[in-house]
Amino acid sequence: MAKEIERKFLVNDSWQPKEDGQRIAQGYLCTEPAHTVRVRVKGGRGYLTVKGRSEGIQREEFEYEIPLRDAEAMLQLCDGPLVEKVRYREKWGAFCWEIDVFSGANDGLCVAEIELPDDQAEFPRPSWLGREVSGEVRYYNSQLIKHPYSEWKKV
Amino acid sequence: MAKEIERKFLVNDSWQPKEDGQRIAQGYLCTEPAHTVRVRVKGGRGYLTVKGRSEGIQREEFEYEIPLRDAEAMLQLCDGPLVEKVRYREKWGAFCWEIDVFSGANDGLCVAEIELPDDQAEFPRPSWLGREVSGEVRYYNSQLIKHPYSEWKKV
Repeated sequence: MAKEIERKFLVNDSWQPKEDGQRIAQGYLCTEPAHTVRVRVKGGRGYLTVKGRSEGIQREEFEYEIPLRDAEAMLQLCDGPLVEKVRYREKWGAFCWEIDVFSGANDGLCVAEIELPDDQAEFPRPSWLGREVSGEVRYYNSQLIKHPYSEWKKV
Repeated sequence: MAKEIERKFLVNDSWQPKEDGQRIAQGYLCTEPAHTVRVRVKGGRGYLTVKGRSEGIQREEFEYEIPLRDAEAMLQLCDGPLVEKVRYREKWGAFCWEIDVFSGANDGLCVAEIELPDDQAEFPRPSWLGREVSGEVRYYNSQLIKHPYSEWKKV
């Protein structure tokens, strides 16, 4: 078990990938407010992840690597469409950003996440960093299967 | 991944345990018809199990052993009360029965399950075997948290 302390930001157009990213497909077996159960295929490996309720920017997380074949079969059991994205990793000072460029129903969405040692930690802000969206529910991957980004624009 | 082929029966009063059973506590992160996600603590070990939709007496099952501490923490995330039972194993001919004696909200319920190599397999019937309840949804453990056996009697 790990406590996840993460902050999430939008990414503005000045950001460009510096190297190849890792393709991710993920789905959800459960997206209740109290907990989510995620199935993920990332870089040819499978993962099953349970996350508890968000408390501010903290969240309980339990992640297990599972056989790829299991993960692929379980993706078929998931509710709704899958979340598809390419993940890029970029160092900035002592920190490492994960930049997710979505495709499919969430095409056009790009967010950057940073994992922090504690919820007061300071970190340098890259020039491409946009507005903070930590805790904004609609940016949760578990919500992007129900209300994909492509539908937001119409509102 | 495994395909579970199981048949489930009630157990009549003539059955008596021959040796100590194994205490099981389990809860559900998800109990949708299409899939369930179960957290279980059994004999001091933790398990996370995803099951697909039942097709007759067959069901896709993915089970992973996880750290006990994770399982105990995840039980706190589960919906509703836990299912508590003691599981006994009993050989009968070439087959092994699992007999679950429920307690707590499901006190009084006792069911026996047998795992079969295929859905046509024949097996000897112990004298204590009651009515078959394979596929009866209310006997699913995932339903016993929502509609426990103690409440059936009132209906």
